[in-house]
Amino acid sequence: MTDASVASLVQLVGGRLIGDGTRRIVGLGDLRTAGPEQIGFVRHARYHAAAKATLAGALLIETEIETSASQIIVRDVDVAYAKVALHFHPVPRASVHSVHASAIVDPEAELEAPVVIGARAVVGKCRIGSGTVISPGVVVSDGSTIGRDCYLLPNCTIYSNVQLGQRVVVHASAVVGSDGFGYAREDGKWLKVPQLGGTIIEDDVEIGAGTAIDRGTLGVTRIGARSKIDNLCHVAHNCTLGTDVVMAAGCMIAGSSTIGDRCVFAGNVGIGGHLQLAADVRLGGGTIVLKDLPESGDYMGHPVMEKRRFLRLLRVLRGLVPGRGDSD
Amino acid sequence: MTDASVASLVQLVGGRLIGDGTRRIVGLGDLRTAGPEQIGFVRHARYHAAAKATLAGALLIETEIETSASQIIVRDVDVAYAKVALHFHPVPRASVHSVHASAIVDPEAELEAPVVIGARAVVGKCRIGSGTVISPGVVVSDGSTIGRDCYLLPNCTIYSNVQLGQRVVVHASAVVGSDGFGYAREDGKWLKVPQLGGTIIEDDVEIGAGTAIDRGTLGVTRIGARSKIDNLCHVAHNCTLGTDVVMAAGCMIAGSSTIGDRCVFAGNVGIGGHLQLAADVRLGGGTIVLKDLPESGDYMGHPVMEKRRFLRLLRVLRGLVPGRGDSD
Amino acid sequence: MTDASVASLVQLVGGRLIGDGTRRIVGLGDLRTAGPEQIGFVRHARYHAAAKATLAGALLIETEIETSASQIIVRDVDVAYAKVALHFHPVPRASVHSVHASAIVDPEAELEAPVVIGARAVVGKCRIGSGTVISPGVVVSDGSTIGRDCYLLPNCTIYSNVQLGQRVVVHASAVVGSDGFGYAREDGKWLKVPQLGGTIIEDDVEIGAGTAIDRGTLGVTRIGARSKIDNLCHVAHNCTLGTDVVMAAGCMIAGSSTIGDRCVFAGNVGIGGHLQLAADVRLGGGTIVLKDLPESGDYMGHPVMEKRRFLRLLRVLRGLVPGRGDSD
Repeated sequence: MTDASVASLVQLVGGRLIGDGTRRIVGLGDLRTAGPEQIGFVRHARYHAAAKATLAGALLIETEIETSASQIIVRDVDVAYAKVALHFHPVPRASVHSVHASAIVDPEAELEAPVVIGARAVVGKCRIGSGTVISPGVVVSDGSTIGRDCYLLPNCTIYSNVQLGQRVVVHASAVVGSDGFGYAREDGKWLKVPQLGGTIIEDDVEIGAGTAIDRGTLGVTRIGARSKIDNLCHVAHNCTLGTDVVMAAGCMIAGSSTIGDRCVFAGNVGIGGHLQLAADVRLGGGTIVLKDLPESGDYMGHPVMEKRRFLRLLRVLRGLVPGRGDSD
Repeated sequence: MTDASVASLVQLVGGRLIGDGTRRIVGLGDLRTAGPEQIGFVRHARYHAAAKATLAGALLIETEIETSASQIIVRDVDVAYAKVALHFHPVPRASVHSVHASAIVDPEAELEAPVVIGARAVVGKCRIGSGTVISPGVVVSDGSTIGRDCYLLPNCTIYSNVQLGQRVVVHASAVVGSDGFGYAREDGKWLKVPQLGGTIIEDDVEIGAGTAIDRGTLGVTRIGARSKIDNLCHVAHNCTLGTDVVMAAGCMIAGSSTIGDRCVFAGNVGIGGHLQLAADVRLGGGTIVLKDLPESGDYMGHPVMEKRRFLRLLRVLRGLVPGRGDSD
Repeated sequence: MTDASVASLVQLVGGRLIGDGTRRIVGLGDLRTAGPEQIGFVRHARYHAAAKATLAGALLIETEIETSASQIIVRDVDVAYAKVALHFHPVPRASVHSVHASAIVDPEAELEAPVVIGARAVVGKCRIGSGTVISPGVVVSDGSTIGRDCYLLPNCTIYSNVQLGQRVVVHASAVVGSDGFGYAREDGKWLKVPQLGGTIIEDDVEIGAGTAIDRGTLGVTRIGARSKIDNLCHVAHNCTLGTDVVMAAGCMIAGSSTIGDRCVFAGNVGIGGHLQLAADVRLGGGTIVLKDLPESGDYMGHPVMEKRRFLRLLRVLRGLVPGRGDSD
């Protein structure tokens, strides 16, 4: 946590200053309880009363109000809040090299100091970039590469032949590079198809707790830069996710599918194998996709349809069995 | 495992005794194979023949039958069975203080003896109440509090700023307190919103294998007392679950939703974000809820409907495409 | 990786040789980049041009073509490829006994040498067959039995009273033998029903990353030989899966259900409790099954229907709300 002047926060978020820019701010606070060294934020006009009465030293807000706090006028409070919060609470990064005495690090591992290796972590013959923090209980297998400023949370597992870019975050119990689900059937019995490919996780990706991302069969599974994958998702072998994809919890992507840039999936989405989804496809919760979606837009349902059409279908279905609660 | 007289078991379950109360019972048995030191249970009249012929020393049963076994007549055999089984097979609890030599415990951790810390566990600057058992491979992060008589199974992870109440059970690979899935979008790119809040797990909660429960963004995610969460569920940031909630495997609850007391969810349920579910809402398997459910009752389907209405809809849909197998 | 003559590979896959059988092959290659010591494969006629121009020393192919490579003519390239790939990339197996200095092995554990126990693994009073590899961070609890030639990937957990057969693979973060989700309700409060049974995983089963398989309540949960379970699946207490069952990611099977031999489930399938599915039932992605399926065949949807009927229903539903994208 680093303190900052209001003026420097104005620069950080690209806003306009109303009031005193020299005040020192040391952290974030709730409008009702914050003190003069904290900054609050006002997401909605319904918080204006609280914002007028606040003792916070500064506010992030979209329109000027009457208040004793310094105001940073911004176009998007959520974005400005994220930047200020990251300033005061950055993702952990190694600044002093430290390998816990109980960690097991292969003598051939290449650690680009400073790196932090936590208690009981196991690090194979791999490369780890500077700034990266490996938490307790993490296993990084032989032949993988972890970029700079990555943050691996406890008990996650990196298989072999995995490449993490810079600033990748992997949460607890997540697994990157597991075997794809490939079998060949002979006389009704299943033979394992060895999974020999790799896994590439590009810069600034975040992978949620318990999520599993398989390696490629021969080629790679790839997660594009800045994509964010929530808890308990599955990305199968040979998939390609574009950049800036967002996938909420419980999404399951079957093998060899391609998800375009900036797609946004709500929770519990299922995507069949060998499918192509265009960029900017947005899927509602529980959508099951078993065909290509070559055009961007909002979709929903099982069978998947354009969202507006699915909502129309819901109205028709409700009409088939009239009942209460149909106002929605 | 502690032996008990039949009479003491009668007291334990609040039943009525038929026959000899002085017999010693040492454990549970199947009606067909049990011996005189075991107690059997009769869940249904179709087991009466076996119960009449059993060599078990005692029986839990709802109505008296002709048998040589002592009978404990109870209103609810399932409840009585649970109590007797817990007597003979209690959840593990620390009675002698023991920290495995391979565990890494922060010197500032406060352990209220007796506590058991298993092999290779990593315990940060946290507080752990007496009676608690931490299994091998568990990681408890700095700044968390584990209550008394908790049981953490292998390789689960407790992030920082988590509070577990008394008698909380956390199964293997589960994660409590992971970052919520919060991002702000600027020019089509996602910025992480730091997740600074906490996670409160109240007394007697059980959390299944591989389940992930996120911390709050600024406030808390809260799981109410006696709630039971099965394997591979997800509870997102800022959610509040009431007391005595039951959630079967694969349920995903999106951010900031509130689930009322005594709700019961079958498997694969998805709940959207910022929703309110009343107390005593029961959801069928695979239900997707994308709107508030302000009244208690049984619901089902995607779109979610009252259960009876959804079943009517299914009949109508089947009628649209006549086929076999419609007797259900 | 063991080199092999083309003739020996012909024997391995049961194919017919065209060309030189004495060439030495050391591994698999892509048709376009392979050299004379690599074998390529041709899954489809569209790769014939590449196969004619390849520098690979040998090819797996279904019909003879004009090429300088030796050709192994097979009925099913996928099956032949699996066999050849497994020859060059076998599942890891212990050939030299090795227990890492940082592993914690109970003095009463019975290890049938050679066994490999990785760094920081914790092995209780259990039995482990020869050839088995236990990776870093794995926990095997007291009273379990691991067969021969098993492969347990990092940070997976085996509870007590679990039996793994021969050649079982368990991926990272997976959990075998966790408590079933059993509670009895008394006055609106839930009492835990102790889960006292076991878990039997038969020979050649593979269990995906993050998957959880519960123990039986009193009896056993059983996974039949050669069944393959993908990532993030859940098999509840008292279930029985037949042999050669295949279950893609995100499938959730509720308690006491029976799945017949050779069933194939696509992703995101949910099966209710106490149900019986016949052998050779195939379920499409996202299917929710809340009734018995006593006949083999293809099914889909929620409500589950025969696949052809469900597809007909989809057409009817689309007809209710005409729109674009209906060609599929």
